[in-house]
Amino acid sequence: MPKEFTITRRVQFAETDMAGIMHFANYFLWMEEVEHAFFRSLGLSIVQPHADGLMSWPRVRVGCEYFGPVRFEDQVEVRMVITDVSEKSITYEAIFSCGGRRTARGRVKMVCCLMKDNSFSSIPIPDDLRAKIEGPPD
Amino acid sequence: MPKEFTITRRVQFAETDMAGIMHFANYFLWMEEVEHAFFRSLGLSIVQPHADGLMSWPRVRVGCEYFGPVRFEDQVEVRMVITDVSEKSITYEAIFSCGGRRTARGRVKMVCCLMKDNSFSSIPIPDDLRAKIEGPPD
Amino acid sequence: MPKEFTITRRVQFAETDMAGIMHFANYFLWMEEVEHAFFRSLGLSIVQPHADGLMSWPRVRVGCEYFGPVRFEDQVEVRMVITDVSEKSITYEAIFSCGGRRTARGRVKMVCCLMKDNSFSSIPIPDDLRAKIEGPPD
Amino acid sequence: MPKEFTITRRVQFAETDMAGIMHFANYFLWMEEVEHAFFRSLGLSIVQPHADGLMSWPRVRVGCEYFGPVRFEDQVEVRMVITDVSEKSITYEAIFSCGGRRTARGRVKMVCCLMKDNSFSSIPIPDDLRAKIEGPPD
Repeated sequence: MPKEFTITRRVQFAETDMAGIMHFANYFLWMEEVEHAFFRSLGLSIVQPHADGLMSWPRVRVGCEYFGPVRFEDQVEVRMVITDVSEKSITYEAIFSCGGRRTARGRVKMVCCLMKDNSFSSIPIPDDLRAKIEGPPD
Repeated sequence: MPKEFTITRRVQFAETDMAGIMHFANYFLWMEEVEHAFFRSLGLSIVQPHADGLMSWPRVRVGCEYFGPVRFEDQVEVRMVITDVSEKSITYEAIFSCGGRRTARGRVKMVCCLMKDNSFSSIPIPDDLRAKIEGPPD
Repeated sequence: MPKEFTITRRVQFAETDMAGIMHFANYFLWMEEVEHAFFRSLGLSIVQPHADGLMSWPRVRVGCEYFGPVRFEDQVEVRMVITDVSEKSITYEAIFSCGGRRTARGRVKMVCCLMKDNSFSSIPIPDDLRAKIEGPPD
Repeated sequence: MPKEFTITRRVQFAETDMAGIMHFANYFLWMEEVEHAFFRSLGLSIVQPHADGLMSWPRVRVGCEYFGPVRFEDQVEVRMVITDVSEKSITYEAIFSCGGRRTARGRVKMVCCLMKDNSFSSIPIPDDLRAKIEGPPD
């Protein structure tokens, strides 16, 4: 049932900083990577054509707690767990683990939007999309 | 006295994404920029020598809410407001404004740490540093 | 007249890597920054509306030589010198200096393009743009 | 024997810019990724302990030519081909292909260095390392 999705990602050299650890802002890029991989696993893309323009998912609220550092060449598991699907938004958590240690936990709330002429307006999540994201009832 | 600090920063091309707006993760880089500029304004650096190693400030919790997009070449004001200084940590907000619009609000909690032999341990904020950061009593 | 343009930029924490120096790929972001600042100084933008779409300047060849590292909080001067303006392209060098030391030298060749329906086609540099970029004859 | 090495990498959302394509500076990050994956495939790391400090490989000259854009979610093959191993340096090319199209070609020259007390000095490539990198004679 696809309400969870996991990728494994290795810390790259350019993602480290002079403190010798992965820079904290990169965790948000990794959250996007697992999220977009989840969408692809459903045959979807985070940017999709829509009758009235282009549908995308701007973020409205994000956050992250850090429990310990990860370093160059560490293999990190990023597990995405959807915690809420409302009329127009999806909220998920991303749990980062490395060698059995939980190293960070992030959260993203993103809103289904129509992009047209360079402006964004929120729209209800289309039914077919919702069905794929929520998966069949338990 | 400096419990607030403001920089103005222009959105660079590489900071945009295919949606035509500044990518959300870059807001965290801008928070660091205003924070480090604040430290410099006090004659400090975010990475300082310490009798027992190197003192730095890993983040333990960060977040951001987005109210509207900013775009290539927009001039954005980033105002840092310290909201808490505890025994070992500093918490601040960063308010992003562009052309009179409030576009985002971020939060960072960072902990005073000693880095030695590649490990971090939290320490009380040294008194001289605390005095500079807190400024004189109102 | 402006065939040269200079900005000064401070190395940010997130631009360093675990070797304690600015990561080499960031020099290319700085080249773009001085280039776009140069365009702005002429009242231009690197992305401009055009009768048939949007005009922009994809890079076709870039390079950089590194003579010595720069570190967190270093103030670096980036001087852009246009070395060639052909029918459809501009080539420039970017000289990086820090505290009197020349630390790097980059090169960028970029082509005037029309973007339409997600495709790029090269076009001659419009005369008014060329006049501004080349400046008056010496 | 391993004088060539290939990875496949998908273009991430944050790697695109407002022109809708992968930003040109990211190609240099991908060159590092294939290079470091090559080192790992030999049981090496780009940062290794050495009797007198830490051994690493600063870049002295890099470049890239771009033949066509790649876009969000494109699968791109990055093939690294070592073109020269001198006393102290390695030079390689990186060929980027997407769906049968060659989209870019990069070059990196990197020098074997000893890092000690925050300074870099070039050293001859240690024999055991050279043997692994060059592979057995043809």
